Amino acid sequence: MQATWIWFPGDYEIWLGNNMNNRRTDRGAYFPPFWKQDSHYVTVEFSTEVDLAKDENILLEVEGDYNVKIDGKMLFGMPKEFELAAGKHKINIKVHNQATPPCLFLQGETFGSDASWKVTFEDKEWIDESGKASDTSATEYQLAGYWNFNTPENKPSAFRLARRRDEAIDCQQVEGGRLFDFGQETFGFAILNQVKGNGKVYLYYGESQEEAMDKAYCETYDQLIVKDGQITDLSTGKTLPIQADGSYTLALSKAFRYIQLCCEGEVCVESLSMDYEYLPEATPGRFRCNDELINRMWEIGEYTMQLTTREFFIDGIKRDRWVWSGDAAQSYLMNYYLFNDNECVKRTIWLLAGKAPISSHINTIMDYTFYWFNSIADYYLYSGDKAFLAQIYPSMLHLMDYVLGRTDSEGMVQGLTGDWVFVDWADKPMDKNGQLAFEQVLFCQALKAMATVARTIDKTDDADKYQTLADTLEAKLIPAFWNEEKQALVHNRVNGQQSQEVFRYANMFAIMYNFLDKEKKDAVVKSVIFNDDILKITTPYMRFYELEALCMLGKQDQVMKEMKDYWGGMLAKGATSFWEKYIPEEEGRQMLAMYGRPYGKSLCHAWGASPIYLLGRYYMGVQPTSPGYATWEARPTLSDMEWMEGSVPTPYGEIIIKMDGEKLSISNPGGVGTIYYQDKVYTLQAGETLTI
Amino acid sequence: MQATWIWFPGDYEIWLGNNMNNRRTDRGAYFPPFWKQDSHYVTVEFSTEVDLAKDENILLEVEGDYNVKIDGKMLFGMPKEFELAAGKHKINIKVHNQATPPCLFLQGETFGSDASWKVTFEDKEWIDESGKASDTSATEYQLAGYWNFNTPENKPSAFRLARRRDEAIDCQQVEGGRLFDFGQETFGFAILNQVKGNGKVYLYYGESQEEAMDKAYCETYDQLIVKDGQITDLSTGKTLPIQADGSYTLALSKAFRYIQLCCEGEVCVESLSMDYEYLPEATPGRFRCNDELINRMWEIGEYTMQLTTREFFIDGIKRDRWVWSGDAAQSYLMNYYLFNDNECVKRTIWLLAGKAPISSHINTIMDYTFYWFNSIADYYLYSGDKAFLAQIYPSMLHLMDYVLGRTDSEGMVQGLTGDWVFVDWADKPMDKNGQLAFEQVLFCQALKAMATVARTIDKTDDADKYQTLADTLEAKLIPAFWNEEKQALVHNRVNGQQSQEVFRYANMFAIMYNFLDKEKKDAVVKSVIFNDDILKITTPYMRFYELEALCMLGKQDQVMKEMKDYWGGMLAKGATSFWEKYIPEEEGRQMLAMYGRPYGKSLCHAWGASPIYLLGRYYMGVQPTSPGYATWEARPTLSDMEWMEGSVPTPYGEIIIKMDGEKLSISNPGGVGTIYYQDKVYTLQAGETLTI
Repeated sequence: MQATWIWFPGDYEIWLGNNMNNRRTDRGAYFPPFWKQDSHYVTVEFSTEVDLAKDENILLEVEGDYNVKIDGKMLFGMPKEFELAAGKHKINIKVHNQATPPCLFLQGETFGSDASWKVTFEDKEWIDESGKASDTSATEYQLAGYWNFNTPENKPSAFRLARRRDEAIDCQQVEGGRLFDFGQETFGFAILNQVKGNGKVYLYYGESQEEAMDKAYCETYDQLIVKDGQITDLSTGKTLPIQADGSYTLALSKAFRYIQLCCEGEVCVESLSMDYEYLPEATPGRFRCNDELINRMWEIGEYTMQLTTREFFIDGIKRDRWVWSGDAAQSYLMNYYLFNDNECVKRTIWLLAGKAPISSHINTIMDYTFYWFNSIADYYLYSGDKAFLAQIYPSMLHLMDYVLGRTDSEGMVQGLTGDWVFVDWADKPMDKNGQLAFEQVLFCQALKAMATVARTIDKTDDADKYQTLADTLEAKLIPAFWNEEKQALVHNRVNGQQSQEVFRYANMFAIMYNFLDKEKKDAVVKSVIFNDDILKITTPYMRFYELEALCMLGKQDQVMKEMKDYWGGMLAKGATSFWEKYIPEEEGRQMLAMYGRPYGKSLCHAWGASPIYLLGRYYMGVQPTSPGYATWEARPTLSDMEWMEGSVPTPYGEIIIKMDGEKLSISNPGGVGTIYYQDKVYTLQAGETLTI
Repeated sequence: MQATWIWFPGDYEIWLGNNMNNRRTDRGAYFPPFWKQDSHYVTVEFSTEVDLAKDENILLEVEGDYNVKIDGKMLFGMPKEFELAAGKHKINIKVHNQATPPCLFLQGETFGSDASWKVTFEDKEWIDESGKASDTSATEYQLAGYWNFNTPENKPSAFRLARRRDEAIDCQQVEGGRLFDFGQETFGFAILNQVKGNGKVYLYYGESQEEAMDKAYCETYDQLIVKDGQITDLSTGKTLPIQADGSYTLALSKAFRYIQLCCEGEVCVESLSMDYEYLPEATPGRFRCNDELINRMWEIGEYTMQLTTREFFIDGIKRDRWVWSGDAAQSYLMNYYLFNDNECVKRTIWLLAGKAPISSHINTIMDYTFYWFNSIADYYLYSGDKAFLAQIYPSMLHLMDYVLGRTDSEGMVQGLTGDWVFVDWADKPMDKNGQLAFEQVLFCQALKAMATVARTIDKTDDADKYQTLADTLEAKLIPAFWNEEKQALVHNRVNGQQSQEVFRYANMFAIMYNFLDKEKKDAVVKSVIFNDDILKITTPYMRFYELEALCMLGKQDQVMKEMKDYWGGMLAKGATSFWEKYIPEEEGRQMLAMYGRPYGKSLCHAWGASPIYLLGRYYMGVQPTSPGYATWEARPTLSDMEWMEGSVPTPYGEIIIKMDGEKLSISNPGGVGTIYYQDKVYTLQAGETLTI
């Protein structure tokens, strides 16, 4: 029986996430998040009960100080091994660790530490004067958290991503230094080769050549002092020796394609290499077609996802390198059509949940709190992982209590001081005051997600409560924001008065979430979606939802054209990964600027990779219709492609699709598939392949 | 200007407290608390504003990774030194540290890090697309926490108590080993001298000789493996070399007077020494009189307090070594008449507060939550430290919310599953069901403390709310529990029905807190306090309050007699520190047993030291009557002493008292003193000395 390292669920994820979120630098300065960062429980009790057929030898590896209690009696010291006689036993192990999460690996012959173990952060078990133990029936236990640390040596706190040596493809002399080109957007640790002499070394990183050449404004750079075989990194203040082979690897990873290397004094660096750092991922989700532009969009989308899928799903690799809930919610969806890495989804959800008390919205952003709820319902739909719902539900309650504690007299949400009402990086000022239609739509959907999850884990009273709240809000929502004249939802209401502004956001989400009746939906399509007078969306972030809404309306032909224009446009402008924002009209240095900074824009941003999701869900056309693909449907659509082939991962394995103008073949690894093809409906049982 | 290390208030205390509370061992097994242990905020922002007359050079020392922002602009890297030009500046420094609390030491020429700096765990400061910073007016700031780390080298995380080498006063050969006697109860690290050869070494610790000689039942022991100059401590699994001088110091401290040393195999240990470990304390509170028994009670009380006043006020040194709220509340009071160590009081209150969310009563014990509130009001009365009230108030709110969330339909508290309703280690079974009069009395007093603190820091609405709750409960309390027939408060009510039990506890607290009118008070004195049919109190813990209640009734003569009997009794039985429990009738091994374990009783327990408090407050008779001794009174009482002299610490310095049958002299270092002496009242201004 395979044991695995276990911990209090969410604790390892929060600890690992703190490591990740605190690695950002801004022109050489450490740059932590501006929201509360939480901590693991420093003392955790792990317990299980076993019934052994014969005596077993038990091996134990623990991260922390610990004790072992067998049937209520503590063993001496911190044993690494002990015997357990045949029969029934209770095992309780308490572990204390401040610096890293308390973790346990226990391996018997027929049992071991695994997801079935119970954990608690306080057992409330005391002994009274007579020696009698207290009633612990009110103690709250959770099932243990785990990942893939399946040997005693493979300690969770020692986790690090994989590395691979990469070399620059080009090096040019420039004024005062050399410019190394690594051929494409990449991420990792710069390596100085053959460092000799004493002096100062500067590395200026650039996602673009312009950025690497601009010492005064590049977003990241390093300063090193080389002296007598030692190198001091001025970002961290730490000094380390040059390696025996003459090389020195930077301690902090950076995003770049280019690095400008400049030396001062008598120091000499022969060349630059890098250690590319990555999370090894399988890609059960694949896509190919006759159109090389579309294939390139998939490839660059996949590479963008590979770069931003790390310990967690992060926003972008150059600047924030943080876990943002709105960004992550999209990464999850793309992931379901690419890596299908459930563990990374769960880790990210745990980290974003943080711990009570909740003192701000997730990432301080109101919309991001709501996406978090919806992403849990999404995750369940794609994975069928009910165990996770039970584990995360207490966090959902805390967060929803926080939200409900801040609603106004109409039960709607308004941004209060300290709340960031984000919506999108829009190209004209957006009023964030009062009730925003967009926020109510998201809030209502979050309440529905809450009800769904509660119902799934048999919290019936809770489910009824949240369903009622959702229904009540939904009933108010459309009347409150619908404007007959504009035939659209207006942007916001202040003191009960509708504004005159119409943005795409609330309207397209209302379509996606099915909040509009047919008449209003048709009206919105005309008055908003296909109305060029309504402000255009210029972030791939909101393009994601806009194009999804169009696909849901059956506008795959138009979406195909827009994808080719928009993502094709980035490719035409030299993108080797997809960007944070793209305005087709911009040229040259304009394309690189954002936030008032000449290279502020991230050129590798997860939310840029949406063609992955759109191609998987709306062209291969596959989606689950009940949790874990127990039932699913496919509505394959070629649009202007001549042929396509690919696969969509499910918990059962891959659904493989091949289609051209004449033939369609779809395999079903499990669940019941319903295939919609040329006005016909086919039902596909597990193991069957439909060939038409 | 003297800078000091600063941190988020309570965070260092919680971290240090985790270290302390996780050092307990039980027969060689690590034994952590059974309640939730909290953690510091891992990322903290420190900020201040300065206006400099001239340029200053700033030195910086930080525990953690950090950045420095001056007037909104971040400096490169993690600078240890920077220049600040003359003029106004905003300084913001963010520090991240998982393993130990984020701490900062900043030294300019005219300013430095101190209690005036602001701290927050999330600044909620984000930058929008245009580069504009968010409105942070809702960000919650606290004033920084600090202690006495006043040089950059003196890092808070490196704190350790003082040590002093002590030697055994006697060594006897016993069967299979040697028994070392250190002369009195003590605490520290055993040291093996001149360790040679290979083999196994056992140390059996005993507060008594019986315990050290009982290998099977002594509460603490160590096993060491000596091999080739290395020693492996089997409690921790760690291996360390024998020192160059042939000695080896144990890693974990223990409480003992005796150690039995046994060697197995070829190993040889010449002798045992110890490093006595202690918190250096001044003793501004002193007492001497003509009666050597009373002097000895004071001395042993002082030594008991010295041993149990450490990083925090702990219960006892042998067994728990934990911070318990009920025990600490008494330590604080004794401390005000001995060390007057405000810092240790505040540290202990912080640690007990823990962090939200509150998931159990303090130490899981309902009464201990209530003592915590009262101890804050006490602390303010003795210290006048209003700044602390503002810092601790958010924790008070969290804890009171927890309590109020668990009241019954009558607004009273009952023990729910998982709550420990303690009261006392009483010598007959005590029903803990339903509403206990004792718990309501404490709860009501806690509500009053809440109101007092809120009023003091100008939270007027809160003050009114808690005062109303207190008044409402007080109005119900006496009618609910008063029994006309018994002329006393009965022990409890279950389903609205009074029980027939009467214990001393509720009745004496009702006197102390002044909840009884004169008629009922007189009745209780007769029917309970001086009624031998009511179960006697056998813990110094509750003797503390019982004797205090008697003193408040003016029964100093009787209390003097009881002190001599009770604490004198322990001394006569060889106590070198005061015990957890004392039953005069017990002899020999009986005296050592508790909790069903032959040496379960702690022979050095802080709550044993109450003569310190009684002599200070009710014989020297000094107590503050308004916060910080702004006004105070003295009612000196010789009882059967011929003379006494001593001092009572105040924020202004020591009040020095000398008194015999004919003369009285009292000095006043500050505030306005009111002296009650022989039916006369004298008013004493600051700096004056009354001589009569």
